Amino acid sequence: MTSADRNPLYLDDLRVGQTFGGNETFALDTAAIKAYARQFDPQPFHLDETAAEKTLFGGLAASGWHTASITMKLMATDGPPLAAGIVGGGLDELRWPKPVRPGDRLHIKCEILEITPSKSRPEQGRIKMRTTTLNQNDEPVQIIVANLIVPRRKQTAMG
Amino acid sequence: MTSADRNPLYLDDLRVGQTFGGNETFALDTAAIKAYARQFDPQPFHLDETAAEKTLFGGLAASGWHTASITMKLMATDGPPLAAGIVGGGLDELRWPKPVRPGDRLHIKCEILEITPSKSRPEQGRIKMRTTTLNQNDEPVQIIVANLIVPRRKQTAMG
Repeated sequence: MTSADRNPLYLDDLRVGQTFGGNETFALDTAAIKAYARQFDPQPFHLDETAAEKTLFGGLAASGWHTASITMKLMATDGPPLAAGIVGGGLDELRWPKPVRPGDRLHIKCEILEITPSKSRPEQGRIKMRTTTLNQNDEPVQIIVANLIVPRRKQTAMG
Repeated sequence: MTSADRNPLYLDDLRVGQTFGGNETFALDTAAIKAYARQFDPQPFHLDETAAEKTLFGGLAASGWHTASITMKLMATDGPPLAAGIVGGGLDELRWPKPVRPGDRLHIKCEILEITPSKSRPEQGRIKMRTTTLNQNDEPVQIIVANLIVPRRKQTAMG
């Protein structure tokens, strides 16, 4: 299912505790881990199996920013189909509790934590959403808490 | 200058307030913004100039995760040359105060905020480092505060 097939959600459609995700996966192999690393995180533990063994990672691991990028892909296609897209000004938290390894297959679980209509801009509001990225054994590899801007449904003039 | 040319830094070499960066830049054009977006953030404001005009961004903008990835590249080559590399378990904060546009040229400024030797593991410690990513007009486009693991210099047996 692509996001185009999903009905757009407005702030008024969301509730605290609502969850999304779990329908799509994103697999990484050694080549993908190294390709991202060459471009954005050229450190030995992301580029070379032998060098990686002697590091804190104890073997080749994906860059945390690669995991974050994959999580964004999964949020765009398997997270909440927010009417204006996944648009945020930042995160309250980002943790990588466990390395991502070659052969891992990731999925996400999103949960709405807070919903705050804007007082100054009645056409929108803000949500706080936790997105946990999990591997094929359901072990969390990344946890983020993001603040997203979400439009409201247009109110009729007569209320 | 590549990281191989720089002397590795241990926890004992760092001090609060020390800064790094500003020697390298990373430029983005429209093609790079769209290439990252196709792979990791396929939303209209990162993929299509015309569609982007009608969104909150008011024009094509790089994915925030693309900016984060570029920042990692600059940290690896122009941040502090930490002895075990840039290795962290997460961030306390991530903000994107301003969009990154086609043609922008980014650089970083890193500042050491805290240095905490480990009590249980005398061979290492933790630092808190703020990395601000700036465009060619010195406007901040991303601010992160990361917690990094840094090895200590080996102590001699005789102290």
